[in-house]
Amino acid sequence: MTIDLAAAAAAVTELRARRPLVHNITNYVAMTVSANVLLAIGASPAMVHAVEEVEDFVAISGALAINIGTLSPRWVEAMRLAAAKAVELGKPWVLDPVGCGATPYRTGVAVELAGMRPTIIRGNASEIMSLAGAAGAGGRGVDSTASSDAAVVAGKALAQKTGAVVAITGETDYVTDGTDLIAVTGGDALMPVSTALGCALSATTAAFAAVRPPLEAAAFAHAVYGAAGAEAASRCKGPGHIPAELCDALYQLDADMLERRAGIEIREFA
Amino acid sequence: MTIDLAAAAAAVTELRARRPLVHNITNYVAMTVSANVLLAIGASPAMVHAVEEVEDFVAISGALAINIGTLSPRWVEAMRLAAAKAVELGKPWVLDPVGCGATPYRTGVAVELAGMRPTIIRGNASEIMSLAGAAGAGGRGVDSTASSDAAVVAGKALAQKTGAVVAITGETDYVTDGTDLIAVTGGDALMPVSTALGCALSATTAAFAAVRPPLEAAAFAHAVYGAAGAEAASRCKGPGHIPAELCDALYQLDADMLERRAGIEIREFA
Amino acid sequence: MTIDLAAAAAAVTELRARRPLVHNITNYVAMTVSANVLLAIGASPAMVHAVEEVEDFVAISGALAINIGTLSPRWVEAMRLAAAKAVELGKPWVLDPVGCGATPYRTGVAVELAGMRPTIIRGNASEIMSLAGAAGAGGRGVDSTASSDAAVVAGKALAQKTGAVVAITGETDYVTDGTDLIAVTGGDALMPVSTALGCALSATTAAFAAVRPPLEAAAFAHAVYGAAGAEAASRCKGPGHIPAELCDALYQLDADMLERRAGIEIREFA
Repeated sequence: MTIDLAAAAAAVTELRARRPLVHNITNYVAMTVSANVLLAIGASPAMVHAVEEVEDFVAISGALAINIGTLSPRWVEAMRLAAAKAVELGKPWVLDPVGCGATPYRTGVAVELAGMRPTIIRGNASEIMSLAGAAGAGGRGVDSTASSDAAVVAGKALAQKTGAVVAITGETDYVTDGTDLIAVTGGDALMPVSTALGCALSATTAAFAAVRPPLEAAAFAHAVYGAAGAEAASRCKGPGHIPAELCDALYQLDADMLERRAGIEIREFA
Repeated sequence: MTIDLAAAAAAVTELRARRPLVHNITNYVAMTVSANVLLAIGASPAMVHAVEEVEDFVAISGALAINIGTLSPRWVEAMRLAAAKAVELGKPWVLDPVGCGATPYRTGVAVELAGMRPTIIRGNASEIMSLAGAAGAGGRGVDSTASSDAAVVAGKALAQKTGAVVAITGETDYVTDGTDLIAVTGGDALMPVSTALGCALSATTAAFAAVRPPLEAAAFAHAVYGAAGAEAASRCKGPGHIPAELCDALYQLDADMLERRAGIEIREFA
Repeated sequence: MTIDLAAAAAAVTELRARRPLVHNITNYVAMTVSANVLLAIGASPAMVHAVEEVEDFVAISGALAINIGTLSPRWVEAMRLAAAKAVELGKPWVLDPVGCGATPYRTGVAVELAGMRPTIIRGNASEIMSLAGAAGAGGRGVDSTASSDAAVVAGKALAQKTGAVVAITGETDYVTDGTDLIAVTGGDALMPVSTALGCALSATTAAFAAVRPPLEAAAFAHAVYGAAGAEAASRCKGPGHIPAELCDALYQLDADMLERRAGIEIREFA
């Protein structure tokens, strides 16, 4: 396993060449920006949620991203069917447990889906701590009220319990399979001032999971996104143009931008 | 009650410090821009519509915004539950009766929700006149076919009937509680050429209602939005970048921008 | 019938003067950009999908656009009601069979709607070939895996079978009523790297169908969109700002931009 920025750049090259179809069942707020981000990095996005077709669509996709941001019962049923089909067919799927901890319904759905063998779980510190059952994380919409460092212990436990790679987004991002721990730097404080960029990162993670094993996929996706986000922020005076500049940066991304704007480092659990 | 631009600027400072969680049940077109506008001004947005969780979410929110733009029965049921819970808990809620008057179904839902003690009702002149039962307003989608001046009488009546503060958006905006009348200037002719900015103003109004009483909240929200909109338009040659520039201007907004770009004035009813 | 760029410019002038209300039942990803594109060219957009009101809304609209991108049974029911009402009232309606061929459910719905006398059907080569029953087109989300040239034969057959004008979007766009064939050039390779611009073109086509007969409407919409797209791309270094620049270009569009950036040509079937 080589997890460094050169390997991330190579994964981008392969992603662009293979152009994986990424099936998204995601929230209404995140759909457009997720599609644009996926197109910009070189993947092929689709948003498909009808129970009448999600299984058929998983079958033709390279990866699946499930995001519970604006969940409702019929959509949750589609999520269940799609996740089960992805596992059956050996296709990678990413769970984004948006707002886990905010309401009992939301937490219940997140816990249920986390039990359906996701390949990767990506969230902010609050969501991961809530999902892991860690005490004191609280829940406040989609905002993180806990630092990502504090969630590393919870993320490790969640990875070990679910078998998923867990990615925790924050000022520094952490990715773990329960054994190894990777810290990824990049991004900018303007990114959380633009909506749904975490959701779009989950979709991006799914795209990388179509071309790399889970731990590498998650680490590379976060490094690429962090580099492009930092590049985007350097071109902005406020949050308004961040989504457009993020897409431009992803479209232009190369090994040089990665080296300048992001960092990947193997860490030890404390 | 002090309603002037300095007081509006102070409300912005407090909003940014308190960062209220604003629960939105809004239309699909408006979701992303509403979330971005709320983030830019300093609030914390969430879009939550499942009947299984809206009441729980109202309980942790600072304010609620309900917008019927893309209504359907299951969503209307969620709107009812959320509005009732907001009233029960004493939380402010804003009603945006998009397209009221366009179809009987839509008008019926708007009237029903207006009867559920909204804190503030915000719409264009057509919508407010239709909702107030004023004759001759007509309805043509979300466009206003009547001037906001002509709707002031209807708005006063609507405020007196519902107990809500009523805000009417147009070239000049009017805000009234049925007794006092406030005129707010700002904005630009490019704003209605970009979709859902009225909807996002309703969400912004909810954010201010989390930190100020209803009449001030509505007046300040319109002044802030008008200032940022005028600033945004000054940076644009067409409607395309208005949403992004609006977010940048809201993010950068201060007392100076307010003074330069907006006006608030107490008026007498004719 | 005069189909040239001067006639397209005249149609734009009339569209702006009449400002047709365009009723959209479209996918979640496309809603915001479709509304913004329609506003930019001078139409009045509305997104309305509740079965309780779609028929009433068709009655007050100038044209209807139906797009199956994120279909589900309840929405399909609304599509059926709206399409039938449009035909009953003699209003033009446009079908965008997004992803036709990708799953049996999606293909079935597309075929059913194509049988409900759409005025215009617009899609990429894969979608049109799949819908026409042409062999070998395949289906891969919303991406075209076949060239538009290869789909002309299928488009002609589809037009003859359904009575609709068929528009096939690609590097060169083709429009046919089964007898005449028009080739439209313009656009840019950056356009398909930004999501839902084909969907928004379908909405634009509906707007033109409110002011021109079907063959002209489709040809003019594609020429206008192609010109604005090429203009937009000339101002961009990546896909991120394409939607905003497209709206600006549509807003600024005139006969000169059309002449510089687009082409219309009558062709013979091979």
